[in-house]
Amino acid sequence: MEDILKENERLDDLGFEDLRIIQNKNGFCFGIDSILLSDFAKDIKAGSKVVDIGSGTGILSILLARKSKASKFYGVEVQEDVAEMSQRSVRLNNLEDKIEIINKNIKDIFEVLPKNEIDVIITNPPYMKLGTGAQNEEKSKLIARHEVECNLEDIIAISQKMLKPNGELYMVNRVDRMIDIFSLMRTYKIEPKIVRFISPYVGKAPNLLLIKAVKGAGEEIKVLDPLIIYNEDGTYTKEIFKIYNMELEK
Amino acid sequence: MEDILKENERLDDLGFEDLRIIQNKNGFCFGIDSILLSDFAKDIKAGSKVVDIGSGTGILSILLARKSKASKFYGVEVQEDVAEMSQRSVRLNNLEDKIEIINKNIKDIFEVLPKNEIDVIITNPPYMKLGTGAQNEEKSKLIARHEVECNLEDIIAISQKMLKPNGELYMVNRVDRMIDIFSLMRTYKIEPKIVRFISPYVGKAPNLLLIKAVKGAGEEIKVLDPLIIYNEDGTYTKEIFKIYNMELEK
Repeated sequence: MEDILKENERLDDLGFEDLRIIQNKNGFCFGIDSILLSDFAKDIKAGSKVVDIGSGTGILSILLARKSKASKFYGVEVQEDVAEMSQRSVRLNNLEDKIEIINKNIKDIFEVLPKNEIDVIITNPPYMKLGTGAQNEEKSKLIARHEVECNLEDIIAISQKMLKPNGELYMVNRVDRMIDIFSLMRTYKIEPKIVRFISPYVGKAPNLLLIKAVKGAGEEIKVLDPLIIYNEDGTYTKEIFKIYNMELEK
Repeated sequence: MEDILKENERLDDLGFEDLRIIQNKNGFCFGIDSILLSDFAKDIKAGSKVVDIGSGTGILSILLARKSKASKFYGVEVQEDVAEMSQRSVRLNNLEDKIEIINKNIKDIFEVLPKNEIDVIITNPPYMKLGTGAQNEEKSKLIARHEVECNLEDIIAISQKMLKPNGELYMVNRVDRMIDIFSLMRTYKIEPKIVRFISPYVGKAPNLLLIKAVKGAGEEIKVLDPLIIYNEDGTYTKEIFKIYNMELEK
């Protein structure tokens, strides 16, 4: 089994059924944000065709291939080595029939996928604008975290073209990108319908947010109760335990 | 003293120094949202010229005339009888030198005020779009609650023209107008800089939000810890007590 791994790679259990994922120890590894987004998006309609923009390790598609009733996932990843690694994770989990990894910049996606036909887009995009934050990172981390290869406007504009009418976009991002996200979504007519803020502690400012937006939908936003990560003593809250637990027990 | 009151009017203590306000028992009376907005905006710079858009009873200007160091308030109120009533409250509090009530639709404000010279705008605008919610109300309540005389875009567009560069806009509104507000502010280049969500209970979804936006500012939003109104037992939280208490004790 270990020869599926290349140098500096490790195999991680996803804690849901028997799912596992390959990650590069020196590269960008998935975080709780991806787990929370996959939980937030798990009720997408049966039979959906889903595009995962910036699929990275493949975490979102691999989890949702089992947690949701969607029928097909296209993971679009610009970095060749990361795309190749995620392809091995897909094979490892016997999900080749459900997940196709496309090694392309999302800007070139219409070379291989049609317009106006995708049911759902999921994305955990680079959070940071170029020129902000520490950028002296390993290249794959830089691309995963910063808007090097595409920015929020590219993602939202391309999503608009890719989605069918009433198609859904699920995104996780930092709260400090909230104004950018909401105004771009309004501009490109993918209307934010459900927002859930994520706070480390109850009663404290959120640092992340989950968004469900719908192409061409009416202007009406519902804000859910916040998702709280930690109890005051630093242990995970019941809800986080449940999200991970569901994965452990199914 | 009572002859300052007309039929159906009552005199309310504001709980801050000796401030009082006249309200029409059958009309729109101020709520906790105005108290929270006046607290949120109380650190506006000394000497500021402030416009209160949709000033109603005069609550925001009357409170901030004492709580802040601003030098001049223009309360713009479209309803003649409401404007006249608020003018009597201004006189009652001996604030004629600080507060001028202008009985105009905000759309006509440039007939009497200059462009690009106002330091601060404060507004607790009608929350509801026309055609939403119960509209079979007494007329002054309808105008206070629904976008009959002006809408959010009017207010933001006019604010942009009225404010000097780096001038500040303070607004309270319902969370379900959040996308409208943020996208309009971005469009009209009054950038949201500080947001504070207001939740009835800790860990629950917010229903209101406070926003500080700055004309021409860079794109960077800070979200504060939420403001919680009630403890679990239904009593006011310490912070609410403090906001009201400050008014009681100074």
